Amino acid sequence: MNVTIRGRARHYRTVTFDAAANCVVLIEQRLLPHEFKTVAARNYRETARAIRDMVVRGAPAIAATAAYGLTQGARAFRGNALLRFARHVRQVYEAIKAARPTAVDPVNAMDEVLAQMSAGQTVEEQQTLALAAAEEFANRSVEECRSIGQHGVHLIKNGMRILTHCNAGWLACVDIGTATAPIYAAQAQGKRLQVFCDETRPRCQGATLTAWELAQQGISHQIIADNAAGHLMQRGEIDLVIVGSDRTLARTGEVANKIGTYTKAVLARHHGIPFYVAIPLSTIDWKLKSGLDIPIEERHKSEVLGAWGVVRNPRSEMRDSKSPRRAYVRVANPGSGACNPGFDVTPPDLFTGIITPLGIFKPTELWHRRRELGYRD
Amino acid sequence: MNVTIRGRARHYRTVTFDAAANCVVLIEQRLLPHEFKTVAARNYRETARAIRDMVVRGAPAIAATAAYGLTQGARAFRGNALLRFARHVRQVYEAIKAARPTAVDPVNAMDEVLAQMSAGQTVEEQQTLALAAAEEFANRSVEECRSIGQHGVHLIKNGMRILTHCNAGWLACVDIGTATAPIYAAQAQGKRLQVFCDETRPRCQGATLTAWELAQQGISHQIIADNAAGHLMQRGEIDLVIVGSDRTLARTGEVANKIGTYTKAVLARHHGIPFYVAIPLSTIDWKLKSGLDIPIEERHKSEVLGAWGVVRNPRSEMRDSKSPRRAYVRVANPGSGACNPGFDVTPPDLFTGIITPLGIFKPTELWHRRRELGYRD
Repeated sequence: MNVTIRGRARHYRTVTFDAAANCVVLIEQRLLPHEFKTVAARNYRETARAIRDMVVRGAPAIAATAAYGLTQGARAFRGNALLRFARHVRQVYEAIKAARPTAVDPVNAMDEVLAQMSAGQTVEEQQTLALAAAEEFANRSVEECRSIGQHGVHLIKNGMRILTHCNAGWLACVDIGTATAPIYAAQAQGKRLQVFCDETRPRCQGATLTAWELAQQGISHQIIADNAAGHLMQRGEIDLVIVGSDRTLARTGEVANKIGTYTKAVLARHHGIPFYVAIPLSTIDWKLKSGLDIPIEERHKSEVLGAWGVVRNPRSEMRDSKSPRRAYVRVANPGSGACNPGFDVTPPDLFTGIITPLGIFKPTELWHRRRELGYRD
Repeated sequence: MNVTIRGRARHYRTVTFDAAANCVVLIEQRLLPHEFKTVAARNYRETARAIRDMVVRGAPAIAATAAYGLTQGARAFRGNALLRFARHVRQVYEAIKAARPTAVDPVNAMDEVLAQMSAGQTVEEQQTLALAAAEEFANRSVEECRSIGQHGVHLIKNGMRILTHCNAGWLACVDIGTATAPIYAAQAQGKRLQVFCDETRPRCQGATLTAWELAQQGISHQIIADNAAGHLMQRGEIDLVIVGSDRTLARTGEVANKIGTYTKAVLARHHGIPFYVAIPLSTIDWKLKSGLDIPIEERHKSEVLGAWGVVRNPRSEMRDSKSPRRAYVRVANPGSGACNPGFDVTPPDLFTGIITPLGIFKPTELWHRRRELGYRD
């Protein structure tokens, strides 16, 4: 999407590949929203570290980064010995896989690159095929998001007030985003809309990343405490809820997503407000048979006990300086513990539909349409 | 309640009166949980300022502070001229009333002191009666909380896991608290229990004040992001919810309380979990006929856009230094706006009962029992 810096708009993807320099170029997301900058990972080890340290995050975004990282590693190989090349590529694969051991998307992306490389007869041919496969993966990821937008845009009527949770925007993908795709498409059609961003404690991806994205695209939005969503629904101030997903079970229609998604789904059902989940095909889990089998990551308690931000005067509207000082403040009582589940699971009866690149389906339809959606036995 | 400092436990009330020095002594709540100290307001103007600046907060606590402040002002008068004395007392009354203009509790408390003073024939007699009335008011407030505990304790079974929201503890009252009273009573009976404290964004009174209180009393507790409550209920990890109230409508049974209370009530209903509201008699509003008539305070957006805390290393468990540096960090995207309603209104069908000093009632019973509960036409 376009990012405007000092009055000049320029198009960015979350991750791109600089073939001449053999670098993976990433938006340094840990600095957002206080600072925008890109960083170049100069070799596959730096790319793996960027995934591990969350320079880039979001399932589709780290998938594309992994595809590029594998290509980068393969292209750094000097020589013609195919067997040594294959051993080297395997080493790159394992290093990138280990960066986020619980994520399945980077592995799938790298498997796709490997499969396409295998048609090459020489090291050079395989290197060329790897680059083409990685670019194809990233481009298809963007096209999937665009299709989500084209299907989802019909849900958005002029003047609607939309609630979203966490960040399932273009920063979590290669471009466009999933939950945000219908919003950007509606804006392109000239529809007026208003977005409420849940701040999404404890990591506040709504207040930081989603709000930054919407501000960059000039979409009217307000940040709310996660506590305020119920009140706003009760007063009739929310017309539609759209969220993303980290894992969607095809067999049951259950959706795992950022902690708090389930709460919003219960609230939406209580108030009769439509609640949609937007997903790329890579988030579909074809294997698990119960949401209870999804491991819920228990994250570090410091996330709940405090907050990261930039130290400043609370009433000042002054612009941040060029190098704002990020700091962690401990908010909670010292010595008190915290319980910090990172995700929750929403059952299919609580949402209205799933927006996929192939259309909007009922949650229970996924399994019936499995061939169409790319399932292979 | 007891507060332990450097290993020594001592009993404190949130507000007391030092008759010899004619000072109102308050716990400086703005420093909690990072620092515990009491401050003495040396004259009624300092007392009014302490209410205004939220050194003391919570409806029952500021009511008692106002009663003491009026007494303090009256006792500072020198001379025997009754008319001049009455004018002086009126001035004190208006200064304290203006400190929190939307609160009704301080006014009710001061009216009670004034009514009892009026029996005195001389300035000195009136001063003596004022002090007795203020002490009586504070003591009755404590007794009300104790009674809430005695009634509410029967709801708590051994081993229960209880969710609470915001701070309706002893810091919000003179002592014991409202929502916390049944918890402290259950502990005194030797019942095992576990409390989940909603952090209660945006002001985080759960993570700061309630967690501090529970830690001081040695009650097992964990702080959770407001987003986690639904997930915990879904997994069967919460047995009971108890919250306080800022205003309870006797005619309809609606309860206004800190933003997020309504969301927790909807969740509790969805999961069939008992949800109780604990109230002193002073929170009952006998007049309003609809929750929609309760003005919902829109608070400053800086509360949602950032957080107050103490700057420190997120992974360090080191004790805070004696004078920790409080700071505000801006978390959210600079330039994004926020919507920050301070309260919400929960309809009576969403809670199981109201714990009052006179017993546990159905929300719709309040009006039928109005004589018993102190209603005067």
